[in-house]
Amino acid sequence: MEEFMKNNIAVIGLSVMGKNLALNIADKGYKVSVFNRTTSVMEEMIKNFPHQNIQGKKTLKELVESLEKPRKIIIMVKAGGAVDSVINQLLEFVKKDDIIIDGGNSFFKDSERRYKTLKEKNINFFGVGISGGEEGARKGPAIMPGGDKEAYNEIKKILEDISAKVNGNPCINYTSTGGAGHYVKMVHNGIEYGDMEIIAESYYILKNIGGFTNQQISDIFAKFNKGKLKSYLIDITSKILKVKDPDADGYLIDKILDKSGQKGTGKWTTIQGADLGSCISVISSALNARYMSSIKDTRILAEKEFKKNEYQKFADREKLITMVENSLYTAKIISYAQGFSLLRQAEKEYSWTFNYADIAKIFRGGCIIQAKFLQNIIEAYQNNPKLENLVFDTFFKEEIKKNIDSLRELTLLAIKNELPIMTFTSALSYFDTLKTARLSANMIQAQRDYFGAHTFNRIDKQGVFHYDWLKNN
Amino acid sequence: MEEFMKNNIAVIGLSVMGKNLALNIADKGYKVSVFNRTTSVMEEMIKNFPHQNIQGKKTLKELVESLEKPRKIIIMVKAGGAVDSVINQLLEFVKKDDIIIDGGNSFFKDSERRYKTLKEKNINFFGVGISGGEEGARKGPAIMPGGDKEAYNEIKKILEDISAKVNGNPCINYTSTGGAGHYVKMVHNGIEYGDMEIIAESYYILKNIGGFTNQQISDIFAKFNKGKLKSYLIDITSKILKVKDPDADGYLIDKILDKSGQKGTGKWTTIQGADLGSCISVISSALNARYMSSIKDTRILAEKEFKKNEYQKFADREKLITMVENSLYTAKIISYAQGFSLLRQAEKEYSWTFNYADIAKIFRGGCIIQAKFLQNIIEAYQNNPKLENLVFDTFFKEEIKKNIDSLRELTLLAIKNELPIMTFTSALSYFDTLKTARLSANMIQAQRDYFGAHTFNRIDKQGVFHYDWLKNN
Repeated sequence: MEEFMKNNIAVIGLSVMGKNLALNIADKGYKVSVFNRTTSVMEEMIKNFPHQNIQGKKTLKELVESLEKPRKIIIMVKAGGAVDSVINQLLEFVKKDDIIIDGGNSFFKDSERRYKTLKEKNINFFGVGISGGEEGARKGPAIMPGGDKEAYNEIKKILEDISAKVNGNPCINYTSTGGAGHYVKMVHNGIEYGDMEIIAESYYILKNIGGFTNQQISDIFAKFNKGKLKSYLIDITSKILKVKDPDADGYLIDKILDKSGQKGTGKWTTIQGADLGSCISVISSALNARYMSSIKDTRILAEKEFKKNEYQKFADREKLITMVENSLYTAKIISYAQGFSLLRQAEKEYSWTFNYADIAKIFRGGCIIQAKFLQNIIEAYQNNPKLENLVFDTFFKEEIKKNIDSLRELTLLAIKNELPIMTFTSALSYFDTLKTARLSANMIQAQRDYFGAHTFNRIDKQGVFHYDWLKNN
Repeated sequence: MEEFMKNNIAVIGLSVMGKNLALNIADKGYKVSVFNRTTSVMEEMIKNFPHQNIQGKKTLKELVESLEKPRKIIIMVKAGGAVDSVINQLLEFVKKDDIIIDGGNSFFKDSERRYKTLKEKNINFFGVGISGGEEGARKGPAIMPGGDKEAYNEIKKILEDISAKVNGNPCINYTSTGGAGHYVKMVHNGIEYGDMEIIAESYYILKNIGGFTNQQISDIFAKFNKGKLKSYLIDITSKILKVKDPDADGYLIDKILDKSGQKGTGKWTTIQGADLGSCISVISSALNARYMSSIKDTRILAEKEFKKNEYQKFADREKLITMVENSLYTAKIISYAQGFSLLRQAEKEYSWTFNYADIAKIFRGGCIIQAKFLQNIIEAYQNNPKLENLVFDTFFKEEIKKNIDSLRELTLLAIKNELPIMTFTSALSYFDTLKTARLSANMIQAQRDYFGAHTFNRIDKQGVFHYDWLKNN
């Protein structure tokens, strides 16, 4: 086949994400070869979603040979062994400088490994986080590519074309090498856990301490969505709250069981925080809140054993709404400060180079955490690319100062009411700890030196010290 | 050599832990062969700590051949590759039914792997957690053995003889197979992190809100140590607080830098909690508190940027002392409830069989978390070996009811004062979440179904449901 007659890119794996991504690429004018291990899945797609720019291929050999050079091949199969298996099969056909792209939800360490292994064979590997679910894949996702900077120029235009746009700007930016793209995606998902949980806690407070109806809370969130909290998650929360139960009287939200699931990425983020020594307590608490939700039977028993007082209604309802709005906002700032601090830690740990403004730009559209507020994060890092912690940015510093009293007051109110707010308290505790120059860790160090001779430093002189506590006690 | 002339056991690795353990075993009348990779280390030990029951060996072959059958060999080398290396070398000499014991601070998954690999070769492997540091190794540690139940009978007597004793009872019990011993040790260390941090927070409150001097706080902890909080860590805290700076005026505690270190086991525990879906927020917060302590420069800057109000002194000082005592106690109960819940989760995950009363018995002496309070945990699990959560035990339930108001009041007081108490708040949040039958996770599930079609359950009927939110909004 003549080179100019060849296709531009291939997609392997045609379940809903792969299929939608292929259609999205084809819509943008690129010629796409598609393949599925079970050929009938490919044939079904060609039959049900015919597209002039899409060609089905029955073997990987045919698929690879149908592509212009360097070949660009997107793998959209289940994360884990299946990705390695496809890569191994492709190695028989791909050549120097070809580009293999894993667009699945892979663990970043796997992407790091694949990147290194393929680099040795002169094959370019990209681990690409794709956010936005099925709809995003079809209409424009947020895209987080990690791999070789130079090879990125070969795929940049296609990926930009298929990505979500905000004011014409594509929601994609190069992250760094190897596993960086999947890492950023992982932290994105962790942040998403935090956002969802602080919204859920806010809803719970408005319902139980505010005494508002679902319709009223829907209106409150709709109003929040016109201000500083404007975001996809606030918007859908408002919409969710006004849905009537299709099968019975009342609102659907009241009929949904309070046991929540999770698919692993919030867990990965929490583990990374612990592993790299970075406190991401809002994300971890959101994960813990999901775990606690899952032990419903234990909670029912505990409520019976430890009688709970009735929640006291808060008299000034307008004030409560303002407190919730400000608390949500402050906790969100703190959560993102933690998330971006983790990215900084990972940058050092894994020898990546991040542009934090570019990362925040990716999140502005196509993904679950899209929010007006990201513009402030972009500006914070544009003003100071080396910013140590988001709380030190001029804008955020002032916002925290304006709003922290609300978060404190709301936290006190909830604790008095025995109302569960694991995430709000974590945000506040982090802030109070961060802004305390002298903590109580001197006691920890004294204890460690006492029982394990672990030594300590002093505040008044350099050096490492050990005291013979036993002898002198 | 005749069998009866042979030695009873061997120790490989003669740095301070191995040396002390060998001396401890020899003191109990057992004949010990010792070996070190660098022979001079062995020779130094023999010269400086001569003992009629200890024989140095220059090769592993000699070492193994000097032992009665089945051979019992304790490895006390640095956790990680060194352990595998010693095991591989030993495999040349050991025979069916011999027993290799890793007494180092190994990661439980390594012990699990070694157990399985050696089992295939008919060699018994024990991963044994040993707690109590250098002094414990010499005079009597707490010991947590994991391996084959049957083979355990071969080493039981020796290990019991060298362990710490409480009222004549040895602080050792068989845990379960494979990595179980090192897992229990890991959770022990996590619990230790929690205990230390709630004590540090208590000290900080007494100092800053109580306005007590170091000597007064020392006396307060000495008094705590006569009551329900009686424990090693409370005792040493009291002792630490009265130590005068040996090099200058004032108390040593005030000169110690508030940056704390960690050696990994609290991190492992936190990661296990996240991985197995078990909320161990007191331990995780204690780990985070250490991480936050380590970013001292950032904290100094943050205190400057976000002015902190002066801590308000609490008028009723006697009441404050009682509040702190009760809060410490309640947070400790909650922390152990979380730690033992993690063990239950691990028991399922790794197919172990735990006797929780036996585990609590190990901790009563020889280790850092030894405390009067462990007797109540033992009784709780003796009364109900299948106890779902410690908070449901009759004794602890009543103790929590009596003391939870103190923890709540103290938490409110600290939050009002902007005083950092990450661990106390985590304990309280966990309790309030646990005793809430209906949480806000219905909102999380609605959101997940909205943006990802993740489906939900209902409270009023069985089944898995999805709602077409987009279509109806």
